[in-house]
Amino acid sequence: MLVIGERINGMFKDVAKAIADKDKAAIQGLAGKQVACGAGVLDVNVGPAAADAKDAMKWLIRTIQEVTDVPLALDSTKADVIEEGLKLVKARAIINSTTAVKEKLDVFVPMARQYGAGLIGLTMEKGIPRDKNERSEYAAKIVSACMEAGINLEELYLDPIILPVNVAQAQAQEVLESIREFRLLSDPPPKTVVGLSNVSQGTDKRGLINRTFLVMAAAQGLDAAIVDPMDKELMDAVITAELLLNKHIYCASFLDAYRKK
Amino acid sequence: MLVIGERINGMFKDVAKAIADKDKAAIQGLAGKQVACGAGVLDVNVGPAAADAKDAMKWLIRTIQEVTDVPLALDSTKADVIEEGLKLVKARAIINSTTAVKEKLDVFVPMARQYGAGLIGLTMEKGIPRDKNERSEYAAKIVSACMEAGINLEELYLDPIILPVNVAQAQAQEVLESIREFRLLSDPPPKTVVGLSNVSQGTDKRGLINRTFLVMAAAQGLDAAIVDPMDKELMDAVITAELLLNKHIYCASFLDAYRKK
Repeated sequence: MLVIGERINGMFKDVAKAIADKDKAAIQGLAGKQVACGAGVLDVNVGPAAADAKDAMKWLIRTIQEVTDVPLALDSTKADVIEEGLKLVKARAIINSTTAVKEKLDVFVPMARQYGAGLIGLTMEKGIPRDKNERSEYAAKIVSACMEAGINLEELYLDPIILPVNVAQAQAQEVLESIREFRLLSDPPPKTVVGLSNVSQGTDKRGLINRTFLVMAAAQGLDAAIVDPMDKELMDAVITAELLLNKHIYCASFLDAYRKK
Repeated sequence: MLVIGERINGMFKDVAKAIADKDKAAIQGLAGKQVACGAGVLDVNVGPAAADAKDAMKWLIRTIQEVTDVPLALDSTKADVIEEGLKLVKARAIINSTTAVKEKLDVFVPMARQYGAGLIGLTMEKGIPRDKNERSEYAAKIVSACMEAGINLEELYLDPIILPVNVAQAQAQEVLESIREFRLLSDPPPKTVVGLSNVSQGTDKRGLINRTFLVMAAAQGLDAAIVDPMDKELMDAVITAELLLNKHIYCASFLDAYRKK
């Protein structure tokens, strides 16, 4: 599973402060630790507080690229902020994210094509999807737009949008079934991704709920997840799930062996 | 998920000793603890060392039934040992187990019908199944035999036979897919069960591998598992998986609430 590290996000206080103070060491520390823990991509989100979102995005990217060359997922609702980032990234980038709204697809799909970037597509339009059927409907719109633009669908990551289990309990299973169903939309199939931590928002057992859901999603064929790779129990669980899916070879020290890859 | 407690099995040294010493307190302690931890059924296996398997089975059943009235899974390869047990059990029993071998089906299927017992069917004949196709082939034989005998298929628990991940790594995924496929064999579908601990035999990370595989199996719709319910992390994981499958209602103390049911 592609682990996308979620921690460089201005919604976290330490990151907001590091952006405001231009504290390179704090950001580079988070980048290095996430990669060391198994992140294959780092999400980069300036957060709501940044005074100038474009400047903050550029500073974050330059700062991170001084210490690691893993691909970055440029995370913003604003197309111009993402495009500024795409001009700077050295490795392959992922655009995070479009939705199925036509005006968004019309901007982000050509942008993904122009810059050779991956694209995360949230399977929603104006509101949150109510069930797996709505998710598949929005997923099909995103897939169609990408196919028309000639984008390799293996570069598309469909996100079925997980909701907090304490307020929308029935949605977790809808998301699990969507992960399986999205694979039927094209051949080769689009990839799937979840923003994991939302499932446990507002609960007392965040770690347990996060890692349990991630293992269930892995069993449905999930390709990628935006998570905190510094959560050791979470990473142990996902590494073990991949072992059981025969994606890496068993050895007595399979947990360490995976992380050293 | 129906949790079938595995601990009253003569393969465990403490149980073998308790059987030899006629130590009721030891057995009743294991019975009470497993039920308190969430077991809905207790597996009862006299193990290989018992001098007289029929006597040992009868003693175990009487001993357990003095302290709890949960259903028992009578676990033996010998039909006469199981039948002695069936005559004694007060609550509903489960026969553990038949295979797809005709001579076994000819004995155990009528026995299940005669005593109104559930039946665990291992999806194998002479050897271990090599893939999900062989598992489905053996499953279909067991389902057919039960249908011909007029057994309610919701009383049949098909076991796809999990193998140790360190020696048969590709089999874990075959088992996961079998759990999903077995549901298509009849309407209403037969139930599914796994003997969990086999997956981690000989590994250094037994708890982690056990609970990860059980969560993955739960995501495929697994109905029952033979496990050690005194493994708190395992039970936390399965309770959380069932929460995410919307099988019990979220509350802040959902772990405790589930166990108190």
